[in-house]
Amino acid sequence: MTAQRVRVAPSSSDPSFPLESYMAERTRWIDRGLRKFLPPPGTRPATIHRAMHYSLFAGGKRIRPILCLAAAEACGGDPAEALPLACAVECIHTYSLVHDDLPAMDNDDFRRGRPTCHKVFGEGIAVLAGDALLTVAFEIAAQSRGWPRYPHRQLILELARAAGSRQLIAGQVADLESEGKSIPLRDLRFIHERKTSALLCCAVRLGGMSANCTPKQLDALTRFGSNVGLAFQVIDDILDITQTSEKLGKTAGKDVKAQKATYPALVGLERSKQIAEQLTQKAFAALEPFGRRGTALRALAEFLLRRDR
Amino acid sequence: MTAQRVRVAPSSSDPSFPLESYMAERTRWIDRGLRKFLPPPGTRPATIHRAMHYSLFAGGKRIRPILCLAAAEACGGDPAEALPLACAVECIHTYSLVHDDLPAMDNDDFRRGRPTCHKVFGEGIAVLAGDALLTVAFEIAAQSRGWPRYPHRQLILELARAAGSRQLIAGQVADLESEGKSIPLRDLRFIHERKTSALLCCAVRLGGMSANCTPKQLDALTRFGSNVGLAFQVIDDILDITQTSEKLGKTAGKDVKAQKATYPALVGLERSKQIAEQLTQKAFAALEPFGRRGTALRALAEFLLRRDR
Repeated sequence: MTAQRVRVAPSSSDPSFPLESYMAERTRWIDRGLRKFLPPPGTRPATIHRAMHYSLFAGGKRIRPILCLAAAEACGGDPAEALPLACAVECIHTYSLVHDDLPAMDNDDFRRGRPTCHKVFGEGIAVLAGDALLTVAFEIAAQSRGWPRYPHRQLILELARAAGSRQLIAGQVADLESEGKSIPLRDLRFIHERKTSALLCCAVRLGGMSANCTPKQLDALTRFGSNVGLAFQVIDDILDITQTSEKLGKTAGKDVKAQKATYPALVGLERSKQIAEQLTQKAFAALEPFGRRGTALRALAEFLLRRDR
Repeated sequence: MTAQRVRVAPSSSDPSFPLESYMAERTRWIDRGLRKFLPPPGTRPATIHRAMHYSLFAGGKRIRPILCLAAAEACGGDPAEALPLACAVECIHTYSLVHDDLPAMDNDDFRRGRPTCHKVFGEGIAVLAGDALLTVAFEIAAQSRGWPRYPHRQLILELARAAGSRQLIAGQVADLESEGKSIPLRDLRFIHERKTSALLCCAVRLGGMSANCTPKQLDALTRFGSNVGLAFQVIDDILDITQTSEKLGKTAGKDVKAQKATYPALVGLERSKQIAEQLTQKAFAALEPFGRRGTALRALAEFLLRRDR
């Protein structure tokens, strides 16, 4: 397999890999982990804990934490040891959605087919629920296992940097500021790499770290994660114009309406699909050193490329 | 102005301690630390970094980080080693103010005599600037020195729990939900302990931990911090009704207007002053084991009791 190939070769991912049951099982692990790490919804004050649980258990696809666990496996580790880090990343992802949906930001009423957090609990509680999810992510991450090569200080730095003002939040800000403007592809890539790819790549890297991976494996996971992360957002751009709101569980066509720069808007639909495929091929190539252990990561990357919501 | 003055036994703090120059010097340290740990305001995207700096360098009194450094000293440690933790606490305090001032929360236009973050940068950026300050706090804390007794995982847990949905955020939520309601003193104490005392106590504890304090010292610091923290909020309640907006740098009389439960509203002004004094006396008592090394903490506790803004 070569990184230059445009079409996904049939051999790229193992068709016999039981992806559906794999994802279902991992989702159950992650949901159990989240319930264990979070204060129960009845904890006083009940409102904030109900709001946190509402957004966290809203039927999300758990892409980032599943990738985190699969990365641990690819490095020969026990995925159970990656669980706290996987859950921490999911909390950060969920907080970013809760705040992103606020009227002051994207002003979205629906997410995953349900009213958004602020529609149910009010804006004040939604701001605080996002804050609490971001905070608890670090509480959970601190409960992970550290290694001499990857001590807690490094795991926390990794998470904080991916979620911080130079990565995830930088992407949100640049996205907010680009609305209604015509921006070059370079700037769009800046946004996508930060808004989506940074945290997804962080999830994959943390999975490797939890398995005490070698520096070479970490490099390979970084290449995999950054390419899959960017592909993921390009596909998101494509789905926003090709799918219905019902299918997506969120408002479709929002990017066009908000005059947001997207890959289809800048380079067209067909070229966007090609780019997503090329990025996925690069991700596949990065997995070569893992051999058969990379099967789950490979299957997940292809699933993300082919998804319809 | 005598309305808010509270009597303290003359022996309680050393009148010869040069508190003013001590605080000025520590403030310079902390400001330098914050500038070192934060991305410069010109970092792309500039808006978010300018907003973070705007709120962080708005003339705050740096009470929590100064207490953190003083607690390190009380335990015989080098206050310079407490600096990352002190700065982390200040970032969390500042984020909580930025979000608290939002229209969906307290809806405040002024803070420390200047327009609030969302008045200058807009609500979306203010939400994100708060998020970024909260996130960078953990990035900074991860750069502190750990000890075998106080490894990074424990420092991070300490910070995340104090800032989380059972402490700081629980206080904000209960505060939000008590508006316009008549609540018993017990519930008001629940709010104050969480909204204010938790993070202030955390600052003091982290200072001790940075100095590798003994478990007994940590207990003493916890008693000191929780009493000073509660006294601090009782004084805040008192100042809200006895001072002008000009003096406070924020809207005075807001608690009455928002029909917020406060100590003066529940137990009267005189009894509130007595309570603040009693809490400060308890804080002084907790410092006894530190002897002369506790001088700065004692002077700070008395300063907080006597402050007029």
